[in-house]
Amino acid sequence: MIKVAILGGSGYTGLELLKLIYSHPNAEVIEFSSRQYEGVNITEVFPSLIGYYDTLKFKAPADISDTEAEIVFACLPHGASMEIVPHFLEKKKRIIDLSADYRLRDPLVYEQWYAEHKTKNLLADAVYGLPELHRADILSASIIANPGCYPTSAILGLAPVMKKGNVIKSDSIIIDAKSGVSGAGRTATLENSFVELYSGFKAYNVGEHRHTPEIEQELGLLAAKDIEVTFTSHLLPVARGILSTIYATLESPLKLTELHDIYNAFYADEPYVRILPQGKFPDIKFVQNSNYCDIGLWVDEKKNRVTIISAIDNLLKGASGQAVQNMNIMCSFDETDGLGNLPTQI
Amino acid sequence: MIKVAILGGSGYTGLELLKLIYSHPNAEVIEFSSRQYEGVNITEVFPSLIGYYDTLKFKAPADISDTEAEIVFACLPHGASMEIVPHFLEKKKRIIDLSADYRLRDPLVYEQWYAEHKTKNLLADAVYGLPELHRADILSASIIANPGCYPTSAILGLAPVMKKGNVIKSDSIIIDAKSGVSGAGRTATLENSFVELYSGFKAYNVGEHRHTPEIEQELGLLAAKDIEVTFTSHLLPVARGILSTIYATLESPLKLTELHDIYNAFYADEPYVRILPQGKFPDIKFVQNSNYCDIGLWVDEKKNRVTIISAIDNLLKGASGQAVQNMNIMCSFDETDGLGNLPTQI
Amino acid sequence: MIKVAILGGSGYTGLELLKLIYSHPNAEVIEFSSRQYEGVNITEVFPSLIGYYDTLKFKAPADISDTEAEIVFACLPHGASMEIVPHFLEKKKRIIDLSADYRLRDPLVYEQWYAEHKTKNLLADAVYGLPELHRADILSASIIANPGCYPTSAILGLAPVMKKGNVIKSDSIIIDAKSGVSGAGRTATLENSFVELYSGFKAYNVGEHRHTPEIEQELGLLAAKDIEVTFTSHLLPVARGILSTIYATLESPLKLTELHDIYNAFYADEPYVRILPQGKFPDIKFVQNSNYCDIGLWVDEKKNRVTIISAIDNLLKGASGQAVQNMNIMCSFDETDGLGNLPTQI
Amino acid sequence: MIKVAILGGSGYTGLELLKLIYSHPNAEVIEFSSRQYEGVNITEVFPSLIGYYDTLKFKAPADISDTEAEIVFACLPHGASMEIVPHFLEKKKRIIDLSADYRLRDPLVYEQWYAEHKTKNLLADAVYGLPELHRADILSASIIANPGCYPTSAILGLAPVMKKGNVIKSDSIIIDAKSGVSGAGRTATLENSFVELYSGFKAYNVGEHRHTPEIEQELGLLAAKDIEVTFTSHLLPVARGILSTIYATLESPLKLTELHDIYNAFYADEPYVRILPQGKFPDIKFVQNSNYCDIGLWVDEKKNRVTIISAIDNLLKGASGQAVQNMNIMCSFDETDGLGNLPTQI
Repeated sequence: MIKVAILGGSGYTGLELLKLIYSHPNAEVIEFSSRQYEGVNITEVFPSLIGYYDTLKFKAPADISDTEAEIVFACLPHGASMEIVPHFLEKKKRIIDLSADYRLRDPLVYEQWYAEHKTKNLLADAVYGLPELHRADILSASIIANPGCYPTSAILGLAPVMKKGNVIKSDSIIIDAKSGVSGAGRTATLENSFVELYSGFKAYNVGEHRHTPEIEQELGLLAAKDIEVTFTSHLLPVARGILSTIYATLESPLKLTELHDIYNAFYADEPYVRILPQGKFPDIKFVQNSNYCDIGLWVDEKKNRVTIISAIDNLLKGASGQAVQNMNIMCSFDETDGLGNLPTQI
Repeated sequence: MIKVAILGGSGYTGLELLKLIYSHPNAEVIEFSSRQYEGVNITEVFPSLIGYYDTLKFKAPADISDTEAEIVFACLPHGASMEIVPHFLEKKKRIIDLSADYRLRDPLVYEQWYAEHKTKNLLADAVYGLPELHRADILSASIIANPGCYPTSAILGLAPVMKKGNVIKSDSIIIDAKSGVSGAGRTATLENSFVELYSGFKAYNVGEHRHTPEIEQELGLLAAKDIEVTFTSHLLPVARGILSTIYATLESPLKLTELHDIYNAFYADEPYVRILPQGKFPDIKFVQNSNYCDIGLWVDEKKNRVTIISAIDNLLKGASGQAVQNMNIMCSFDETDGLGNLPTQI
Repeated sequence: MIKVAILGGSGYTGLELLKLIYSHPNAEVIEFSSRQYEGVNITEVFPSLIGYYDTLKFKAPADISDTEAEIVFACLPHGASMEIVPHFLEKKKRIIDLSADYRLRDPLVYEQWYAEHKTKNLLADAVYGLPELHRADILSASIIANPGCYPTSAILGLAPVMKKGNVIKSDSIIIDAKSGVSGAGRTATLENSFVELYSGFKAYNVGEHRHTPEIEQELGLLAAKDIEVTFTSHLLPVARGILSTIYATLESPLKLTELHDIYNAFYADEPYVRILPQGKFPDIKFVQNSNYCDIGLWVDEKKNRVTIISAIDNLLKGASGQAVQNMNIMCSFDETDGLGNLPTQI
Repeated sequence: MIKVAILGGSGYTGLELLKLIYSHPNAEVIEFSSRQYEGVNITEVFPSLIGYYDTLKFKAPADISDTEAEIVFACLPHGASMEIVPHFLEKKKRIIDLSADYRLRDPLVYEQWYAEHKTKNLLADAVYGLPELHRADILSASIIANPGCYPTSAILGLAPVMKKGNVIKSDSIIIDAKSGVSGAGRTATLENSFVELYSGFKAYNVGEHRHTPEIEQELGLLAAKDIEVTFTSHLLPVARGILSTIYATLESPLKLTELHDIYNAFYADEPYVRILPQGKFPDIKFVQNSNYCDIGLWVDEKKNRVTIISAIDNLLKGASGQAVQNMNIMCSFDETDGLGNLPTQI
């Protein structure tokens, strides 16, 4: 039984980790911290967990610094992760960081989109935790930079054609992404209040979403050249789920069956990517509360363009589910341990 | 053209007043204040109003104290209204107060449920602004205590039988009320955030909701005796609408048609109460964005009990619509001026 | 490994059974029927199940009549169940019937609320499958009448005080219940279409809901006398969840702590009933996608009345989860097998 | 007072017309037909209209064929409109057809996407009823082909740059559109049932939506050359509203202020198009229940691409509101008559 600690456990990614690991056959959460809720019983914050974590209380971050856990999940805001990661590395812990702090290999890019990076020296050690692309490196990593939710849906949607090369024009990629509100975290803001969002729909951060460079980095690595994408994020009036509709122009004519072959081959052994049959497209309902990424494909032979649609649960494959998948790889567990929940669908 | 000022205009009741009065043939909003948004253009806060109030900015409360307006709507929190009402009374303004500060005739009751009352001397001047009960007094009032949203739905649901007397047992009244989230105001709180409420439903303030004494006061006046009710509030995952399901035991056998006769007679001349035909019951969809209160009735002859169901839009008949209706009465306008919007239904 | 067949498996209760039993350590679904979808692959109807039941197709009801399954779940409409139950009983199958056909012990009551009962002779064999009340009988039953969703929430909410006796006045019970839309089944009707229900809320079947006699029967058995209740059902604009707010008048003064003691004692060993601490009340979010019934309690000492609030997921504890719980008891499995999902909460 | 008749008045576009024209100073609905609801009182179907249309009943289509109305709104399905339009033309009525039957100038295109066209001879008489493009022709038209909802949002979003020419590459247009469920009409289908859509989001009719040729026709007319677009429709879990996110590649570098100038000039005198200030983008909440089209603009100077976001209420500017706007032009009324409702926003 691997011992696990969660830093910043009072947000939605913390909640999901608590639920997933409770059902995990080989791991257990022994403690979790929260600046805001120090000393508060977890069932006070998450009443659905009554009967599961009845005796555990949130600790102050300082009280968790000598944790016996082997794996530390950091569910902290950007900037806060880099403050504590060095400490836990020194203590020989392996860290799965759900913030953006170690996702961008180039610190200048990080600083352009976020803020000063205080531990640039650790960037080379961090592995971008998308198992479908970096499984081998994840196995031995000491720091996992757990991918962002939008990037997970966009990169998985594009990886097969980027890797193959010469399928789509690399400057033609447009990603129109829509996310449920839980992607914004568990916070008290007017703009995320119920009435402000109910029955609404809008784009936000148009032309300047921080997930853009993360997508470009990973697509560039796959394509072995610089890639730029147009990425637009929208806010869906639902709690969870991301659907990305991705457009690109073909380099040369391609049939839909050929595109399907490329995707089916690329993801043949992946437990959490489902390529839907021709004529079927994803719905966020069909992945909610599961770790799946569903992908649907379309080729417009006349207009010489592909449409790729991918759907994930932003809190699972887009955050905590992927984090557990990474832990499973790091610990040589069965990669599906703790991730057995079927999609709820309704 | 009557000039109107709105204090605390940046909340949802302020927004609704701005919309209603824009279409009013005899009134216009000349200024509005907001501590939080002083100097900000109103379309910055309410982008839907582009094209309507493009040049107006929120003023500091102090800058509105010498307003030329004849009518002042106070959309301030409880406690803040009583701070400014004396000033505007001195200036010979007529005030429609949407807070609870002047609703309870007995200051001791106010202080038990809210806080210290600093202008007890004005309570006798305030008129409880439910036109169906107090139209004559509203006409000449200098302070209107605009009713709470739950009380509006509960009192209108019960008024005919309370007034008639000897229909229901006065100690048997149970009001099970459900409200959309806009009733909680336009505020940044975790508990009103989208994710916390989406797909949820719960009771809140069980046994201790502040609207209870307001309901009891008005029912007591109608019945000419002390009335106590059991009132439970619930939070519906929708933006607007209140539905109250009201139960009471009959004093003696009564047929449904007789109950209908009592209600139809009581509300015969009311423009904003619709008694639904036998077998029909309200849906908040059928009153949303209108000033109506819909009422449906049922008698269980075997169990000797009535079920009364009333529905309103909490922001209109439950707040700003009723406030405009009160202004119309005070100013001898047509009572329906500015309130012509049909329910949106979908 | 127990073999299981599902009749009428294309509805929401069928979907939930498929999901639950997939994760069950000791049971597996070997076949399911659907008149409407005969020959159709299950993933065509429920795309979320891709990867789980890829090779199974819906069979015609006739093709399942010689099933090897030991347990047959009947997810058929009222009236259809009684047509096939005798056949499977003859084949020595044990049947868990999710319809109302065997819930009412008195066939006259059934016929008053539903239709002619064609197998009255089997009523004596049927056990009302609420484990908290009838666990011993369930163990050996050949027919389980799986309780209705509203009755589950109402009966669990009232059982401790009904059983104890002399706590509440038995003619004072009012149950104000609110259900998500999945309770209406998976059907193409205008009144359950998205636009007709979105942002709405209403009561329906006022004074004449078929679940009333079922509630009265079980409360009467607990109290050992005839019980009549007032029951009102409402439609919440969410997919799943029932919250019942229950009111009753006390026989004699009672403190809240005493009421808590009664409930905690009654449900001390129950795995799926959670009595919330004083001051806490249920939210359907905290039980969604789990088999729990959460109960919150309130005593108004001044008005001499109790308020009991219970919440369940109508498709789990109110249908398929309870059905699996019944199967577990019948087969002497661990009662929690296959029911390990934590509430999703968000 | 112009007399108006509505054919097929029991759908959502019929409901909206009834509401809009009720408040119209110069028009009144004298009768409406419905095959399904013949003889039924309108308040039975639309209870929100109690107090407005209490005495009117739906007529059989045949009973309306000699109507005294001057304007006939046809809210019939595609294919049904063309069956009756010739009759009413003969009777010298002016027809506003909300179906697709007269939108496509080329009958071959119609037949490719819909079905056989039985009145091709009338196509030349029909005017595509988008006032911003065809106001002069609408004035004297006998048949208005009222635009589709998606086309309205897409064409208004692109018209200024298409008309100007040489701004965007005409083969680069991608329209990613998201619609509320009311766009699917008032129908009893499983796929539009509440539970199937609640908390979901998906693309549908990928690569083959019937609104594509309509968009291409009007953009082609503006650009004076053939235009092909990639159009993807998605289903939002809300009742009403369409948001289209439109991407195109620039012909040559362009600053955002220049793009704003183009749009502001093009729509300078339009009462129902609002070009949002730089940095602001539409939300369907800000146009719901109004006739506005809001447009937000973005230029990515580095990637040489524009993003245009437009939002409408699909039932108003996308259907019945636009139909009333067309009637106002045809009858030389003030173009805003009956369309005075402010957006509800919440």
